[in-house]
Amino acid sequence: MRMVDIIAKKRDGKELTTAEIDFVVQGYTQGEIPDYQVSAWAMAIFFKDMTDKERADLTMSMVNSPETIDLSAIEGIKVDKHSTGGVGDTTTLVLAPLVAALDVPVAKMSGRGLGHTGGTTDKLESVAGFHVELEKEEFIRLVNEHKVAVIGQSGNLTPADKKLYALRDVTATVNSIPLIASSIMSKKIAAGADAIVLDVKTGAGAFMKTKEDAKELAHAMVSIGNNVGRKTMAVISDMSQPLGLAIGNALEVKEAILTLQGKGPKDLEELCLALGRQMVFLAGKADSLEHAEEKLKEVIQNGKALEKFKDFLANQGGDASVVDHPDRLPQAKYLVEVPADKDGYVAGIVADEIGTAAMLLGAGRATKESEIDLAVGLMLNKKVGDQVKAGESLVTIHANREDVADVIAKIKENITISDHADAPVLVHDIVTE
Amino acid sequence: MRMVDIIAKKRDGKELTTAEIDFVVQGYTQGEIPDYQVSAWAMAIFFKDMTDKERADLTMSMVNSPETIDLSAIEGIKVDKHSTGGVGDTTTLVLAPLVAALDVPVAKMSGRGLGHTGGTTDKLESVAGFHVELEKEEFIRLVNEHKVAVIGQSGNLTPADKKLYALRDVTATVNSIPLIASSIMSKKIAAGADAIVLDVKTGAGAFMKTKEDAKELAHAMVSIGNNVGRKTMAVISDMSQPLGLAIGNALEVKEAILTLQGKGPKDLEELCLALGRQMVFLAGKADSLEHAEEKLKEVIQNGKALEKFKDFLANQGGDASVVDHPDRLPQAKYLVEVPADKDGYVAGIVADEIGTAAMLLGAGRATKESEIDLAVGLMLNKKVGDQVKAGESLVTIHANREDVADVIAKIKENITISDHADAPVLVHDIVTE
Repeated sequence: MRMVDIIAKKRDGKELTTAEIDFVVQGYTQGEIPDYQVSAWAMAIFFKDMTDKERADLTMSMVNSPETIDLSAIEGIKVDKHSTGGVGDTTTLVLAPLVAALDVPVAKMSGRGLGHTGGTTDKLESVAGFHVELEKEEFIRLVNEHKVAVIGQSGNLTPADKKLYALRDVTATVNSIPLIASSIMSKKIAAGADAIVLDVKTGAGAFMKTKEDAKELAHAMVSIGNNVGRKTMAVISDMSQPLGLAIGNALEVKEAILTLQGKGPKDLEELCLALGRQMVFLAGKADSLEHAEEKLKEVIQNGKALEKFKDFLANQGGDASVVDHPDRLPQAKYLVEVPADKDGYVAGIVADEIGTAAMLLGAGRATKESEIDLAVGLMLNKKVGDQVKAGESLVTIHANREDVADVIAKIKENITISDHADAPVLVHDIVTE
Repeated sequence: MRMVDIIAKKRDGKELTTAEIDFVVQGYTQGEIPDYQVSAWAMAIFFKDMTDKERADLTMSMVNSPETIDLSAIEGIKVDKHSTGGVGDTTTLVLAPLVAALDVPVAKMSGRGLGHTGGTTDKLESVAGFHVELEKEEFIRLVNEHKVAVIGQSGNLTPADKKLYALRDVTATVNSIPLIASSIMSKKIAAGADAIVLDVKTGAGAFMKTKEDAKELAHAMVSIGNNVGRKTMAVISDMSQPLGLAIGNALEVKEAILTLQGKGPKDLEELCLALGRQMVFLAGKADSLEHAEEKLKEVIQNGKALEKFKDFLANQGGDASVVDHPDRLPQAKYLVEVPADKDGYVAGIVADEIGTAAMLLGAGRATKESEIDLAVGLMLNKKVGDQVKAGESLVTIHANREDVADVIAKIKENITISDHADAPVLVHDIVTE
């Protein structure tokens, strides 16, 4: 088998065999096939796409790594949730204890990552004492006994994906549906997921700017999952404005607590139920999506979800009293209001720009070396479609520095008020095949 | 300027600027841009093509090398001829003295190359004493005084092209019209051509198998030449069967002598006139193509072309007596006839396979290290369209080994005889813009 022939075959639009794809992925990972051939191959894929079979083969070849974690000792169907990334996305903090309260095993591997706010691990570390440095045996025991645990991602579960992604990043071949979909799915599968629920965001704050692109990516990932024996479903959700009201680490933990009490922002609750019902259904804990949703509402109402959150925090060394006393979470020194200039309706809150405003405060990492300030962030007081009066606060800035003129300017530029505006649809679509 | 942005721009089908193309070519040649970005860029070009302006920019950026030879001391318009490569192509040996006899300066740089037979240098070395190791000053003096000289190509005139071609070869990006055309044109321009005549071959023995592809390549090269101020014309010629009758080094020299005497094979003469009249016209030595052709016929008839060939050989140390005594050229030990199996008409002589048969005898190089046997080769006794009787010789094998069963088998497999066949059209098209 020669790499140049495989490139030519893909260039000419023909379907590669399982053996050919594995030859590329393993050969590249082991350093036997050079970067310059793989980048030409990736560009050919950009233009000629991959069939469903090729996508599944690529995914499983990337999963095939010596470091893939074995979670077979965990009982039950492990359902992982993945979001393609947005601003103020607190769903993981809500969903982990929520579905665990229904005995769905949540064995979460979490990194820190770059972004407007920290990753799930950073957010949870707002709770004093909480840590994710668990031994693998302890992690498995916690999931078996308590149904939920988070472990810090160590090592490199998918070295092939990591190497390929780094190459795509510098060769203008990132934006290819088969390559994006197989990259995401390989990571989820390597992390031990038996079933996968995807939250594909669309809008200004999302990687996929249009609904059509988001739907195509969702279909691609669901198809890969189902083709490789991992039941997969996806929700296409709005990210034109931030999700919920909180953008910041401790602020989002507080918002998650409210949501687990049934007192959270409507959109966050709606999305958590849309994703949670798929997780519960795929885990086999309900015989229909409707039934799953009823069960989720039940554990919110009867307090079991909130209890599970306390349990989860305490199991990993966290101060569970923050659930009843959110003021024990890190607090910013300065609260600054951003008032509306005029009467009207909020017509737009540009998600990614507002996320950047939070990052300016120190809520997220711009580079791997950046230190996160867990206390800072933004609380939206209005969302798109809300009526507002001149002088009324649009956003409350939680800052640890006194001068926040830059943050105020950024926010004002990116919130528009007009005579009339409706709230956007939150869940655009459900993709099940 | 970032390479990844230039790749993305081409990927999205936009026209690159002169500065962007120069950034890629110079950066790559100097080792500042890595292979893996250039291969992705080349694949994007494969799919998205280049505009005429981009092709001209790419060509001239590749010409821009410190080793490009300065031939400005040569008087007159230097016209170079380039063939895209075929089997039994003796045109250069004929054309160099033929147009020089009309005062068109022929300053030829020639390599050895791989192929069914040797390159022009190898063929000329069939003449005892002839050598191409000239000092640059001597080369220029010979061209100014005698209008024709051949110098061995030393160094690397177009390092950018060489590096890019090597990369394309292993990344399935060879077969791209803009990249092929700019590669060829950059080499001709770097070698000092003021005007260029192209012989684009089509058919089994050619790189371009169809007339349409050949025409597209011809148009691409003519357009580049004219856009960068080098008057360029092209002929699309048949290479379904070998050109002329001789395939071999000394055999082709002998055939060239016959052609310069007006006694050569009709097809070789026809193509030499078609290319020669363009050379003479572009050099400004005739005011029309028709007039140029008349002049060429005149110097064949009055013996001036043949005299020029003698002159040329003697100037570079060669034994010019071979022109009057071709038996002084290297002779093979064994002559073996390949008879026809049946009566009929020759319907096909597969050019590349017949070329391979000559290479089996040692007429060409399979690798850089191969030694060429200048004496061996094939003489076709019949061409497509000729009538033949069973037992009559189709081909005479000139060999230096006794057992040529492999060569006979190869020839028999690739010459077909049927009830009726016409000679193919030789010159398919003339491309002037």
